[in-house]
Amino acid sequence: MSEGTNHDAKRRIILNAFDMFTPSHLSFGQWRRDDDQSSTKRRDLDYWTNLARILERGDINALVIADTFGQHDVYKGSAETTLRSTVQFPMGDPSIPVTAMATVTKNLGFIITSSTSYESPFVVAKRFSTLDHLTKGRFGWNIVTSFKSSASKADHDEELANGLCRIWEGSWADDALKEDAENEIYVNPDRVRWIEHHSENFTLNAPHILDPSPQRTPFLLQAGTSPAGIAFAAKHAEGVMLSGLSPHILAPRVAALRSKAAEFGRNPRNIKVFAIVTPILGKTEEEAKAKYEKALKYASFEAGLAFYSGNAGIDLSTFDLDAEIKPEDSTVDSRIQSLVSSLKYRGADVPAWTPRTIGKAMAIGGNGPVPVGTPEQVADFLEEWIEIADLDGFNVGYVVSPGSFEDVVDLLVPELRRRGIYTPQGESGTIRERIYGVGQTRLLDEHEGSKYKYENYDFTQK
Amino acid sequence: MSEGTNHDAKRRIILNAFDMFTPSHLSFGQWRRDDDQSSTKRRDLDYWTNLARILERGDINALVIADTFGQHDVYKGSAETTLRSTVQFPMGDPSIPVTAMATVTKNLGFIITSSTSYESPFVVAKRFSTLDHLTKGRFGWNIVTSFKSSASKADHDEELANGLCRIWEGSWADDALKEDAENEIYVNPDRVRWIEHHSENFTLNAPHILDPSPQRTPFLLQAGTSPAGIAFAAKHAEGVMLSGLSPHILAPRVAALRSKAAEFGRNPRNIKVFAIVTPILGKTEEEAKAKYEKALKYASFEAGLAFYSGNAGIDLSTFDLDAEIKPEDSTVDSRIQSLVSSLKYRGADVPAWTPRTIGKAMAIGGNGPVPVGTPEQVADFLEEWIEIADLDGFNVGYVVSPGSFEDVVDLLVPELRRRGIYTPQGESGTIRERIYGVGQTRLLDEHEGSKYKYENYDFTQK
Repeated sequence: MSEGTNHDAKRRIILNAFDMFTPSHLSFGQWRRDDDQSSTKRRDLDYWTNLARILERGDINALVIADTFGQHDVYKGSAETTLRSTVQFPMGDPSIPVTAMATVTKNLGFIITSSTSYESPFVVAKRFSTLDHLTKGRFGWNIVTSFKSSASKADHDEELANGLCRIWEGSWADDALKEDAENEIYVNPDRVRWIEHHSENFTLNAPHILDPSPQRTPFLLQAGTSPAGIAFAAKHAEGVMLSGLSPHILAPRVAALRSKAAEFGRNPRNIKVFAIVTPILGKTEEEAKAKYEKALKYASFEAGLAFYSGNAGIDLSTFDLDAEIKPEDSTVDSRIQSLVSSLKYRGADVPAWTPRTIGKAMAIGGNGPVPVGTPEQVADFLEEWIEIADLDGFNVGYVVSPGSFEDVVDLLVPELRRRGIYTPQGESGTIRERIYGVGQTRLLDEHEGSKYKYENYDFTQK
Repeated sequence: MSEGTNHDAKRRIILNAFDMFTPSHLSFGQWRRDDDQSSTKRRDLDYWTNLARILERGDINALVIADTFGQHDVYKGSAETTLRSTVQFPMGDPSIPVTAMATVTKNLGFIITSSTSYESPFVVAKRFSTLDHLTKGRFGWNIVTSFKSSASKADHDEELANGLCRIWEGSWADDALKEDAENEIYVNPDRVRWIEHHSENFTLNAPHILDPSPQRTPFLLQAGTSPAGIAFAAKHAEGVMLSGLSPHILAPRVAALRSKAAEFGRNPRNIKVFAIVTPILGKTEEEAKAKYEKALKYASFEAGLAFYSGNAGIDLSTFDLDAEIKPEDSTVDSRIQSLVSSLKYRGADVPAWTPRTIGKAMAIGGNGPVPVGTPEQVADFLEEWIEIADLDGFNVGYVVSPGSFEDVVDLLVPELRRRGIYTPQGESGTIRERIYGVGQTRLLDEHEGSKYKYENYDFTQK
């Protein structure tokens, strides 16, 4: 087996669960249902430990917990709808429940979002190394970069990612930690390097404060595929998550990403690409459809509009709520034209796309697909997406939690396993091992961060 | 019962456990013993959950986990000894194991150190509110301020503490969180305020991102008693921790603190003062002495010197290791004179204070007392300290962990309880309730932070 290739002959489908420390992540209005517990997650560790147990039972690769520091405030020019209808607000810190979940699981990974904008590298390095230690290498970082603003911002993200890899990979030699009681040598000072960095953005001049964790650098996930985002991900990401209503929309983005990765000397297959999906599963088609109808009933169109308006930067409240928007109408903003064009890929039949129906659609699964059906139908759907868009798996969102995740584990996972495209039962290891194969706990040699490995890098060169 | 007075006629002794996410916190060299598990705490959640269960069994008020971002590097002008002999290095992030410990406890509080220097107020506010939610109000913050540097630094700390209290106390009205499914009002936007702040140090213009946790503002502990530190603590702290080798050294500091608190309109008894202590307990005096001898055998004098040199800012390696230092010798630095003078309060008999014997002494319990004896003897010792220095309790350090904490729980606590000066069995509640009485989950009205309570503060006034 060569390094980092898939370790199964048939390509395996990787499922992550996708949640956020907030009542409504990608489905809005469902908090009003009795069978939804998302609202309690801010208060109760039981929510998180129960969820972790469910996901572990389904051999889910990792729980990805998104995060944000802002409020959607484009719709109606204020955050009012965001607060009233709970659109990714209120929001807790995703790093906090991780160790509680780790106490009740052995295999499940935990990937949390953290922005490079708010914290200094040494704080992040220490916190993430602690998380990777205490989860035994089951920790990943979803890097949110700040590409939209400017080229200098992109440089900053690059600088920070490299700075962190230098701390994680380059400060401690593998044999620096001795714990030699007889000779009273806990750490061999000659095998620990001070990491120096002096720029406008940040200053470093210290060793990594914690001995290396199992993975050293956490598994690196990245979201978004702007041109700058693709360049960053092609170099730094081990996993990328994308969102789109059709595999035909994603396909060219995935191709661009893999081709850019090859330019950086990486095996393009080693970037694992996950599409966001919110399946609605039933034992029968009727059961699934009934669940979808119930979801529609509770879907808050206004929350959906606040979410979409915030993401797209267009205030949809300025439109007539019930007037049809036609993609061919050239007076409509091109971003809305493109949204409405892509909405045809939604499973549901909608007579006309108006802000109200758009809001309803966005309020179930956000800007990702919502396949509704039996395990067989949904598995067919996922396989088709994988084939068309060249994906490696999915970040699976919920309509209600933990109910939607229980359906994935109890209905979808057995079907995928029956098809021979799912992970073996009880597979353990670090996240990186579960992705790249047993033994591959550290960054692949081809990865950008590997050039900072203690033994590889000449640190006299700044 | 009036607000915030002690709720027992006889003054109760409050015990916190004092640990750090590092092999050696205040006792150095003991990591070489088979019966010490401190070295594994970086890697194993079991260390933390086991410790939490032990402390809960003893109705310990809270586990205080210290933190630092630097390395002691004064001794020999480098961090070599710090690394080699593990002097508060390597170090993990204390916020990470908290929820794991919360899953196995109901009453124990968790107070973690976080500096005001490294993170932006909104990051800290969100993280700490999350911790207070998920622990059901059992969370506290040990504020490390940066007083040493300059007056402008002190202003910065003051500004940051007030900024955080405004976020926690002033952003959400008590009735802002509706969770009203019928009318689709999750949060009432009219009852949530944006907190605005614009200064050189930081900028705020947002609501608190998370709904109020049980305590809103975490229980506020503060360490250190420099003059600026006393002024800060007298206004902001609900608990203060001090370190000194004699109660006579602490007494004037405690008096100054309480008197300054009174100047700020607070009941001076409402600042709970904890001295750091590292008791060595045995069922018999012989057993205790044997434990002390064993501790001495493993105590690393060089680590003790690295610790002391780092704290005091004096490099003791420049002295002859075995030459006696006499306090009356006027050629010796006054800080070392004062250290040597205070070392007479140590329980152990030492023929002469040399750098080597000072290092040994500092390597067991650091700069705090180390009473050695039976539960009765140690309880007498603690009661004497309380009386002389006007204390409210202790932060109890360890020689070996969790063994030293087990001794406190199994030997000392029953003796304190027998004397009627310890908390009732199984006492529950938020930290603030356990300190100030049932129902007192929020800041006392007299506390500085209370003026920022939503209903109290005119936020149009910047």
